[in-house]
Amino acid sequence: MSKSLPKRSENYSEWYNELVKRADLAENSAVRGCMIIKPYGYSIWEKMQRALDDMFKETGHSNAYFPLFVPKSLFEAEETNAEGFAKECAVVTHYRLKNDPDHKGKLIVDPNAKLEEELIVRPTSEAIIWNTYRNWVQSHRDLPLLINQWANVVRWEMRTRLFLRTAEFLWQEGHTAHATKEEAIEETEQMLHVYGTFAEEFMAVPVIRGKKTANERFAGADDTYCIEAMMQDGKALQAGTSHFLGQNFAKAFDVKFTNKENQQDYVWGTSWGVSTRLMGALIMAHSDDEGLVLPPKLAPIQVVIVPIFKGAEQLALISETINPIVKELKKRGISVKFDTSDKQSPGFKFAEYELKGVPVRLAIGARDLGNGTVEIARRDTKVKQTYPLEGVVETISNLLDEIQENIYQRAFNFRAANTHVIDTWEDFVKTLDEQPGFISAHWDGSPETEEKIKELTKATIRCIPLDAVEEEGKCILTGNPSSRRVIFARAY
Amino acid sequence: MSKSLPKRSENYSEWYNELVKRADLAENSAVRGCMIIKPYGYSIWEKMQRALDDMFKETGHSNAYFPLFVPKSLFEAEETNAEGFAKECAVVTHYRLKNDPDHKGKLIVDPNAKLEEELIVRPTSEAIIWNTYRNWVQSHRDLPLLINQWANVVRWEMRTRLFLRTAEFLWQEGHTAHATKEEAIEETEQMLHVYGTFAEEFMAVPVIRGKKTANERFAGADDTYCIEAMMQDGKALQAGTSHFLGQNFAKAFDVKFTNKENQQDYVWGTSWGVSTRLMGALIMAHSDDEGLVLPPKLAPIQVVIVPIFKGAEQLALISETINPIVKELKKRGISVKFDTSDKQSPGFKFAEYELKGVPVRLAIGARDLGNGTVEIARRDTKVKQTYPLEGVVETISNLLDEIQENIYQRAFNFRAANTHVIDTWEDFVKTLDEQPGFISAHWDGSPETEEKIKELTKATIRCIPLDAVEEEGKCILTGNPSSRRVIFARAY
Repeated sequence: MSKSLPKRSENYSEWYNELVKRADLAENSAVRGCMIIKPYGYSIWEKMQRALDDMFKETGHSNAYFPLFVPKSLFEAEETNAEGFAKECAVVTHYRLKNDPDHKGKLIVDPNAKLEEELIVRPTSEAIIWNTYRNWVQSHRDLPLLINQWANVVRWEMRTRLFLRTAEFLWQEGHTAHATKEEAIEETEQMLHVYGTFAEEFMAVPVIRGKKTANERFAGADDTYCIEAMMQDGKALQAGTSHFLGQNFAKAFDVKFTNKENQQDYVWGTSWGVSTRLMGALIMAHSDDEGLVLPPKLAPIQVVIVPIFKGAEQLALISETINPIVKELKKRGISVKFDTSDKQSPGFKFAEYELKGVPVRLAIGARDLGNGTVEIARRDTKVKQTYPLEGVVETISNLLDEIQENIYQRAFNFRAANTHVIDTWEDFVKTLDEQPGFISAHWDGSPETEEKIKELTKATIRCIPLDAVEEEGKCILTGNPSSRRVIFARAY
Repeated sequence: MSKSLPKRSENYSEWYNELVKRADLAENSAVRGCMIIKPYGYSIWEKMQRALDDMFKETGHSNAYFPLFVPKSLFEAEETNAEGFAKECAVVTHYRLKNDPDHKGKLIVDPNAKLEEELIVRPTSEAIIWNTYRNWVQSHRDLPLLINQWANVVRWEMRTRLFLRTAEFLWQEGHTAHATKEEAIEETEQMLHVYGTFAEEFMAVPVIRGKKTANERFAGADDTYCIEAMMQDGKALQAGTSHFLGQNFAKAFDVKFTNKENQQDYVWGTSWGVSTRLMGALIMAHSDDEGLVLPPKLAPIQVVIVPIFKGAEQLALISETINPIVKELKKRGISVKFDTSDKQSPGFKFAEYELKGVPVRLAIGARDLGNGTVEIARRDTKVKQTYPLEGVVETISNLLDEIQENIYQRAFNFRAANTHVIDTWEDFVKTLDEQPGFISAHWDGSPETEEKIKELTKATIRCIPLDAVEEEGKCILTGNPSSRRVIFARAY
């Protein structure tokens, strides 16, 4: 709490790293690239999980759990998928340690306990799940399978950053199987919209819903849908993906069913996931130089009440007024902390709760009591205002709604201000460097052009928006004809 | 559904295995010893998680997340613990696969991607967590640390059984750090009682709260507390453990703090856990030859309503009466399924919901409608009774409470009937074989005697009950003096 955070304007990346640590969200561990999610950070993740899980269940999905390990022979069955993940797989080769004969108290891997077949620590679970689905599906009456799992996965990333890219991360992965192509596509799109709704309504982060280009597709998918968010440095962050898998995994794992016409067919699949990466998006979308700014719907503490007092007697007086308010807030499902500690000064507490992103802060002292008022500070705008104590629960409740809405609107306006419609290569390059953000531009549809643009500018096609308007245009790089604009940006 | 289950009286073990599969709770996977928890089974586990998590939070604990992997050098730091788990560790040695030059489309472990230090897949997380706590604790003001994590762990068991013993399982592990020995012991005991309350009030499984003998202690603990339950075959099942770790991990990982007297001291630790093994206990404690018997508090579907109808018109009439009842039940937080499918006969449905352990089943046909009645069947006693439709929601609600209580009472009576106070070796051996259950007997307190008894009878000391009465007696095997009885049993 002694030092202030680095400023976003000076070093956005450093600001992020420091904020994650100082706000007690996460830290690096003794294991390369693996993070520790600290209690405060985890409690935000729990709120995300709960909201998402409710949405999955409302759309008919059930949770299940599949093994952490994938035998190598299963892993390689769907070749595109295997190739896509092979370079970042943690591999279990042995199942026992033994005492090191040369160093007392030390252990070594027991060479006699080598596995016949290596086990891959799941980087994603399509292989193990589709291998199971084969036994679960015989007839069209067994379909659809609508299953989700909350799990940890491991991808051996070389350059890691807390929440944004870690070797182990937590996520949910939905895996569904359907009788028809249409139904599977519908599911893929439905789950994209669930993610979009979650991002906007809970995280207060506006997102663009779109499709990835072939270059950026999930390995093993026929189509990848995504939601893309803009961070405060103008960079894009892919916040969730939903894949239409066609019959690729069904064919690789021989998952067939008897359809209504009594014929054998392969089932159609989807998979979709969001991860602890969402924490990174949440932090970078809203927070400021004083610390976290959390949308009320995901804030572990929505309201903090800081009494200004000297001695037990004054505190008792304040508590007499505040305790019923705390009770009433809790009754409404509002999480509130009444911080009566006398170990820290009110000023210290103010800074601490600002750092932690608590949306609403009440301060109340002897004089306020006399006046029947309370000072309320909003974390989002930092506006402080005096309100009557009477009806304060209603005031707070309305304020929380207002803050949720305001944070979203601010992010929406920011994105609008930093989205540029560009028609020439010169402007394209210049805008990327001088006004980083989303660029809406024409592209000729070829993977080579996309690759070339990436090479020249580090910008990638984030997505082809679902609501892209058909219009005639010329590719920003080649001048070849294009029928719609796509979104370019540099990305996390 | 075609075949009936094996009978408990004929082959208890086979009955369990079949029940777990047929009731869609879990199945074996392609990975040796790792299970797949199916949606219905997982939904019971979710209910357990939710109830336990609430209890942990009520007692001041927060959730966090620590890495899946433990570097070998950390793993071996607490030697007793390391030795206890070394023989069942899955070890990651490589972080990349590559194409097999000899077999197109196949992958091999890339020998160039060998880790400098092997990573152990956590069998338990004391090592990685205490290594982190070192940086989190400086002063007594940083204590206590009251942290829990929900996670998967891996122990390479040679003989596995669904839920009871699997190579990977899901669990929660609490890890706390305290300024004083007394406080740590108090925490250890508190969490044991949380587990006891959960087992009895939610699972409806009566448990004995006790301490393990030195032989059966957690590797690295000074004391292990446990709850022990009796299954229907008279065998014991350890359902949860809570460990007082003394300063063992603090010393191994150098976790010191400045106490109130301004002196450096090592912190005191506890850890405590329950796992998906609880599912095994739940199944084996209550279920019968027709299938699962679930306590209402953990049943994913608490009430099923089966309409007896021919044609859409009759169903519409029944639905008119039933829909408001369904709505009212849901309003009370009772989970209900109105099974209107015409694909299966009522008889088939009855058997299916019996297999799945749905506590209350309503059947209603045209005649019932006319009479203003409904037939209600209890899963626990299989008693069917006709009730007036008026007030049926109240009837159901009371019945659920009654079933919860009855299942507990039945298990309690079963345990009482199968707990034997034994004073001679001859009776001890005979009782174990002829009336399997708990044996309350004297033991001289020596590990050698305990070991010898195990060797001779396969019975182990399940625990020294916390409420054991001080009494003079003679050891069942050696005749040496003993001051209290302990609980012996054969165990899962």
